[in-house]
Amino acid sequence: MDTPVESVKPVKTVNVGICGLGTVGSGTFNLLIENAALLANRAQATLRCSHVGARRDNPACDLGGVTVSRDIFDVVRDPDVDIIVELIGGTTDALELTYAAIRAGKHVVTANKAMIAEFGNDIFALAREHGVCVRYEAAVAGGIPIIKALREGLAGNRIEWLAGIINGTGNFILSEMRDKGRDFADVLAEAQALGYAEADPTFDVEGIDAAHKLAILASIAFGMPLHMNGVYTEGITRLQPVDVRYAAELGYRIKHLGIARRTGQGVELRVHPTLIPQERLLANVDGVMNAVLVEGDAVGPTLYYGAGAGAQPTASAVVADLVDLARHISVGQSDRVPALGVADAAVESLPLVPMEQVETIWYLRIQAQDKPGVMSQVANILSARDISIESLIQKAPRPGQSHVAVVVLTNLALQSNMDSAVQALEALDTIHGDIIRLRAETLDG
Amino acid sequence: MDTPVESVKPVKTVNVGICGLGTVGSGTFNLLIENAALLANRAQATLRCSHVGARRDNPACDLGGVTVSRDIFDVVRDPDVDIIVELIGGTTDALELTYAAIRAGKHVVTANKAMIAEFGNDIFALAREHGVCVRYEAAVAGGIPIIKALREGLAGNRIEWLAGIINGTGNFILSEMRDKGRDFADVLAEAQALGYAEADPTFDVEGIDAAHKLAILASIAFGMPLHMNGVYTEGITRLQPVDVRYAAELGYRIKHLGIARRTGQGVELRVHPTLIPQERLLANVDGVMNAVLVEGDAVGPTLYYGAGAGAQPTASAVVADLVDLARHISVGQSDRVPALGVADAAVESLPLVPMEQVETIWYLRIQAQDKPGVMSQVANILSARDISIESLIQKAPRPGQSHVAVVVLTNLALQSNMDSAVQALEALDTIHGDIIRLRAETLDG
Repeated sequence: MDTPVESVKPVKTVNVGICGLGTVGSGTFNLLIENAALLANRAQATLRCSHVGARRDNPACDLGGVTVSRDIFDVVRDPDVDIIVELIGGTTDALELTYAAIRAGKHVVTANKAMIAEFGNDIFALAREHGVCVRYEAAVAGGIPIIKALREGLAGNRIEWLAGIINGTGNFILSEMRDKGRDFADVLAEAQALGYAEADPTFDVEGIDAAHKLAILASIAFGMPLHMNGVYTEGITRLQPVDVRYAAELGYRIKHLGIARRTGQGVELRVHPTLIPQERLLANVDGVMNAVLVEGDAVGPTLYYGAGAGAQPTASAVVADLVDLARHISVGQSDRVPALGVADAAVESLPLVPMEQVETIWYLRIQAQDKPGVMSQVANILSARDISIESLIQKAPRPGQSHVAVVVLTNLALQSNMDSAVQALEALDTIHGDIIRLRAETLDG
Repeated sequence: MDTPVESVKPVKTVNVGICGLGTVGSGTFNLLIENAALLANRAQATLRCSHVGARRDNPACDLGGVTVSRDIFDVVRDPDVDIIVELIGGTTDALELTYAAIRAGKHVVTANKAMIAEFGNDIFALAREHGVCVRYEAAVAGGIPIIKALREGLAGNRIEWLAGIINGTGNFILSEMRDKGRDFADVLAEAQALGYAEADPTFDVEGIDAAHKLAILASIAFGMPLHMNGVYTEGITRLQPVDVRYAAELGYRIKHLGIARRTGQGVELRVHPTLIPQERLLANVDGVMNAVLVEGDAVGPTLYYGAGAGAQPTASAVVADLVDLARHISVGQSDRVPALGVADAAVESLPLVPMEQVETIWYLRIQAQDKPGVMSQVANILSARDISIESLIQKAPRPGQSHVAVVVLTNLALQSNMDSAVQALEALDTIHGDIIRLRAETLDG
């Protein structure tokens, strides 16, 4: 199975047990074979899949002479396996497998964002106790080495904030809505037909998947425990094409961002549709691609872009973790990078900032009566709550309509002030229906 | 000097000797102090600058109780120093210092792209002999952790090609030329006034600096020895605003790219002005920022963006290397990542592809007589050399001119064929003056 390596004598063979042989599992299995010689040269050891645990074979893999078990726990019980690759997904069997592997003294590599976001603190504690590593580069943004960038590449920096397009399905939908002026529901149906979106798309379009990934990124960025439940999550399902168009008129594009920011009050963790200036690189990340923008105190902004999902890109991240581990364990050393980037004893809880205290720019779309004095009412209500107007679009009424659309972009304003302003505005006789509001970020420091 | 760390007990203090206290040296010195507590948590050891070697102090640094030597070699002779940070630049004293440090059993961190590109093979061999590490993240693209991405984050991939904006000065000039339609010389003068360009800008605008960085990136990407002299280098000094405009009409932007590509014949290494489709992220990297696009066989395209120069961004990369080393040496282990990403014995010479055999898309600007038959002459000459036309712009003649500008974008064509075509075209009576030609890349696979 492992291609013979002639150019370098590996110190040792590192045996990998792959549990789960779906899309990512088969991608990983095949990548270990296809690039075997190269990987041996990089890891300075032979990396070979010696045991597969899967309920059924996958026609995409030629399992050849590899041991196959239908019970994934047989892989954990295999004394020859050094690293368990957990690719079964979910948080029940996967978690049990991960705990069993750690207790058996095996390192674990996983692509399971839900498991890490929800149970990471316990998993890392157990791994510490047993002296093994748990690696999860593939859990966030697929093949983009963003975990490594935050945990190692930017280790010199205090991270101020990060903002990411970390759900490819959502980004595909938003890109299509903007490019073609299409409805959310319409594009979602196409994404499902193309296989970009699940039959039940809730995880993707309601921001839950992005919240899992954001929780992980924030913990590494700020050296704090995983706080899955602290992430404010707002989906893209109610986004209307008209707002995408108005945003464009204002020079903005709407992206579904995960944002983590450190402020004087604590840490903001939020996933929501966000207007960002169209000239930002992040605004130009289209289709199913992912990207994460990170602001460090020394380096300033850096951005990481690539495929956020798929068999091969995710396998790329899994195998990078395997090479990292193999580089060390093949010579009896341990990988010295802590699970969350800081020494375990230094992982520190930080207060989460309630959304009412979060300050952002706001986009408002108001249906107002087309008569004198209405605009000054709106401006007065905003101004009384310390909200100033940065720019404004007022459209002529459509034939036969007595209301006009007024679109406002504010300067930075507290959500609590905006809540109060919207309530006051909606109470006016001259305002029709609900006010549409979205957050905007300049992402410039 | 080192901020007390209460949350974690470092195993050991790692002593750093900084040689050279210019912009990057002082940035590094200050960053080690400002983020001391955070760095200790990340490195699981205290990182402190214990010795500075510099001809003179720098007012940007409060050297406090740190030992200062006017002779940089005194820092190497200091038995307490674990890591030498070489920030004096150039390839004479810096090289001597690096060799001395290695021979003294000290690890070396450097930002010196010229030294690594020209002498890296010897430096890494000596380091191997003495069992120490030489780290150089800061040598390419400043604060962007691109060396780490290539050597570790993408370790699962066979790298197919990479293309980077790796000189901020050149990118600033090209961005201004495009945005404002200005001349090269005009913008260069401004860049010099702003401090973005040196008094002698040759290194930047002729592509020599980019060639150094490309040589380094290519060696890691392909696991081959450093080949500084194998890089084809073409500057941006002769670029004219009219070509920037025509490129825009065709939907392209011109960037000064460093490109390394693996083909059936070997490796292409080239730095030249390049038309790239305007919708690519790389086309939207403006001003002094850098970015590198990498194509891996598993992950597909990934992109890394950030500040390519400056005290703080470069210090960010230097300190990341220090944290990497400290994480291991504080517990008596060695950092197991090989200097060029593959085991030293596996570093393999690859043939360099001569430019005549390099295939690219071509942009041609031809001054042709405005009369029937000329266009078919042009098309015939190209077609006879297997060069097909992808798109064409023909402008009406200016008043009083008998020549018109014809702008051609070809499909992929060998340089040798293009050389022959240009020679034949320039020999025509109906063609006026020299033909302007530039390369284009789609960067899509």
